[in-house]
Amino acid sequence: MREIRRHATTSRRSSAVVYNGMAFIGGQTAEDRTLDIRGQTRQVLAKIDRLLAEAGTSKSRLLSVQIWLKDITHDFAGMNEIWDTWTAPGNAPTRATVQCALGLPEILIEVIVTAAVDEAEVE
Amino acid sequence: MREIRRHATTSRRSSAVVYNGMAFIGGQTAEDRTLDIRGQTRQVLAKIDRLLAEAGTSKSRLLSVQIWLKDITHDFAGMNEIWDTWTAPGNAPTRATVQCALGLPEILIEVIVTAAVDEAEVE
Amino acid sequence: MREIRRHATTSRRSSAVVYNGMAFIGGQTAEDRTLDIRGQTRQVLAKIDRLLAEAGTSKSRLLSVQIWLKDITHDFAGMNEIWDTWTAPGNAPTRATVQCALGLPEILIEVIVTAAVDEAEVE
Repeated sequence: MREIRRHATTSRRSSAVVYNGMAFIGGQTAEDRTLDIRGQTRQVLAKIDRLLAEAGTSKSRLLSVQIWLKDITHDFAGMNEIWDTWTAPGNAPTRATVQCALGLPEILIEVIVTAAVDEAEVE
Repeated sequence: MREIRRHATTSRRSSAVVYNGMAFIGGQTAEDRTLDIRGQTRQVLAKIDRLLAEAGTSKSRLLSVQIWLKDITHDFAGMNEIWDTWTAPGNAPTRATVQCALGLPEILIEVIVTAAVDEAEVE
Repeated sequence: MREIRRHATTSRRSSAVVYNGMAFIGGQTAEDRTLDIRGQTRQVLAKIDRLLAEAGTSKSRLLSVQIWLKDITHDFAGMNEIWDTWTAPGNAPTRATVQCALGLPEILIEVIVTAAVDEAEVE
């Protein structure tokens, strides 16, 4: 049976799951929800950097990303300003960004990620 | 050519697709849409249990899940009450939950799932 | 290190990413946003056909699809009319369709796709 590695697992969710050469990272939101879209985006991407590192990979190995914004008209440009400087040059993932109400009114952005993981290849 | 197995395929969609050690399960909704969020969540998760079994896997091998709620403010707690007791202890997947209008006004929850499948490893 | 192939990569996104026998295609929208839902759906699916070909696969190898509609009540039937004739007979993917505001008010549909890719198996 091929191994599944789970990180920070509760009865509700794992923060990350690694399987079959891929890391799946669940919906990440900012800790400080008083921040504007730039600040929340920075915090979300920093959390993703940490979760990718724990999973044995990095942002240079991203495959696909989904971004949900509370207000895409107001916050799309600000999110992209932070996003575009965060991506690893030449290695941006596929991406889709849509507008949805999120878990709490003060959450402006939520992001999920799929990334390649190398160590799973040598299992 | 690596095999793709499809389940309950119409011209519109398959209920599940198995490939490369993974099962993809399409958007599941409750049959009885007069039910409240707890009832609809129970029905959705029971359908997912059946589809996972047909695909040769189970909820203990879930990788990632996306949940759409019609009204996240009203229904998040009720959905989680059912969800948290459904997950296999120590094996919760990554998860993201957002609010969207769904196919019909009476649909309160829709869920998609990716899971690990063991039999595909021995192809 | 298993290879990741990226297509049309900018600092923001790749149009497609191929890894581990799978192609991930990012959020596709119509070029001509004056079109109605049928016209926009046709353009989106034609773009996906082109991106699948560039990735070395086709619509007969689709695994899973997510569709976002700006107005699911108004446009679900029109989208399905085009979709149902586009899918490869016997090979429809799993699918989930929800309603979200998209990047611009005139965008009626956005679609992401995961497909199987054969060439990656012989790496």
